[in-house]
Amino acid sequence: MTDDMYDISILGCGPAGLSAAVNAFIRNKRIIVLGMEVCSPPLHKAQKINNYLGFYGINGQELLDKFLEHARAMQIAIRHSKVELITINEDGTFNLLVDGEVLNSRSIIIATGIPYKPTLPREEAYLGKGLGYCATCDGPIYRDKDVIIVANDAEGEAEAQYMAEICRKVYYLSLYKNIGKLDSRIEMIRDKPSEIMGNGCVKGLLLKSGRVIEAEGLFVLGGETAPDRVIPGLEIVENHILVDRDQKTNLPGVFAAGDCTGKPYQVAKSVGEGQVAGLNASQYAGSRN
Amino acid sequence: MTDDMYDISILGCGPAGLSAAVNAFIRNKRIIVLGMEVCSPPLHKAQKINNYLGFYGINGQELLDKFLEHARAMQIAIRHSKVELITINEDGTFNLLVDGEVLNSRSIIIATGIPYKPTLPREEAYLGKGLGYCATCDGPIYRDKDVIIVANDAEGEAEAQYMAEICRKVYYLSLYKNIGKLDSRIEMIRDKPSEIMGNGCVKGLLLKSGRVIEAEGLFVLGGETAPDRVIPGLEIVENHILVDRDQKTNLPGVFAAGDCTGKPYQVAKSVGEGQVAGLNASQYAGSRN
Repeated sequence: MTDDMYDISILGCGPAGLSAAVNAFIRNKRIIVLGMEVCSPPLHKAQKINNYLGFYGINGQELLDKFLEHARAMQIAIRHSKVELITINEDGTFNLLVDGEVLNSRSIIIATGIPYKPTLPREEAYLGKGLGYCATCDGPIYRDKDVIIVANDAEGEAEAQYMAEICRKVYYLSLYKNIGKLDSRIEMIRDKPSEIMGNGCVKGLLLKSGRVIEAEGLFVLGGETAPDRVIPGLEIVENHILVDRDQKTNLPGVFAAGDCTGKPYQVAKSVGEGQVAGLNASQYAGSRN
Repeated sequence: MTDDMYDISILGCGPAGLSAAVNAFIRNKRIIVLGMEVCSPPLHKAQKINNYLGFYGINGQELLDKFLEHARAMQIAIRHSKVELITINEDGTFNLLVDGEVLNSRSIIIATGIPYKPTLPREEAYLGKGLGYCATCDGPIYRDKDVIIVANDAEGEAEAQYMAEICRKVYYLSLYKNIGKLDSRIEMIRDKPSEIMGNGCVKGLLLKSGRVIEAEGLFVLGGETAPDRVIPGLEIVENHILVDRDQKTNLPGVFAAGDCTGKPYQVAKSVGEGQVAGLNASQYAGSRN
């Protein structure tokens, strides 16, 4: 129990995350809200929201602004960082790896929105069997071997650079525009991925053009992160986090709210679940203080 | 399937009921909202609501006004009537008894707020064993017998009048002020009820003063109505309507949302559940249209 222990760490700054934050704040809990640069991209883009009670004929951006204003009025800050990994300590508290820093927390609320969509079909079947999400972590396994990097954003470039120094061959397939300057040892693939080749283990990648690239390692970088990869052991059912009516997950001290727990993907449902998660996490954290 | 069939009948015009209405309306469902004169008395009286996302520092009445405005903007009307009884037809549709009129509906959403508190202790133990909630319904059973009427409001006076004409003796105990003129055959009790006397069946009522009034019948009138008395067969657990995460009750076509489904008794939770109930009832009604 250190001084820098948060009562609640909230992952996500959309309707569910902000509602959880507002409710936990009222309970005098020490909270941190960790979210993407744009809180709730789907709401942000919505033309018209007519079914969040109290606001009629508002557009998504305006409603999101109201939500953020509410949080600001209560001095709730949002840290725009991504949580890489959460581990559970022996005493039941949590460590969050965020930008290379470790945060400590008594409880977690996951409010990360519409669930993860894999970048490639059947990723889950190859995870740990040649497919990985962190090249710098798994890199040494592929020393002097061939690897393919499929990158959703420019952050993949540094990882490709690192791999170029230890692998025999690095293929780089970008799913974004404006690719930076890459090491001459990296071969750029100007094509689209189609499917993972392999027979239990990764053997390569079939491209849309029909070309096959053979490799022992395949890294998918910068995509969305499935919640059960962030918190190993979290129970997922049909791509959603399993919760009960108290928004509890299967892991003690871990709550979830909003689109990540299931349909309907709607603002009021998210705000309501965020409230219940915020109040129950406050109670949980309070009981362990 | 008649023309005057509603898709969804919503019981309650507080946050859960209005949220259900707004969501069902957007799905083009034919709905009716039935509520008390004041929609959500607890919200109405709240000094300050800081945890319904989007409104900071608003008071209960203002927030309720925003909700009612939203419904009005969508031309959703509220009928201020009480549903006496709901019965289920063979084809799975519902009949609602409202002000002596029968309404037909494909589905029901119960959003009646904080659950029923009995007027007298152990009412449930004597229900149907000398205790009733509708004097004019059960009156004939008590012809030439003695009955006690415990009335929460002035509507009990007409029922007492009716009973005076058929019973041997009618005792009238009002729990409200400004009692009207009663028939001389009715004996006014200026005391407070303490407990029901009986041994399986009602034998009388013990008053706070220690006086015992003997009677074969006891009617409790004008109090809140427990949801499982309005819809017989509805499953209640610890005084709340049992629902799953789709807001379905144990009865097909019957959904519930808001405080009646359990704690926390909070606006955002109610609005969120109302949305889910409204969308799922819309889908249910649509599938049976």
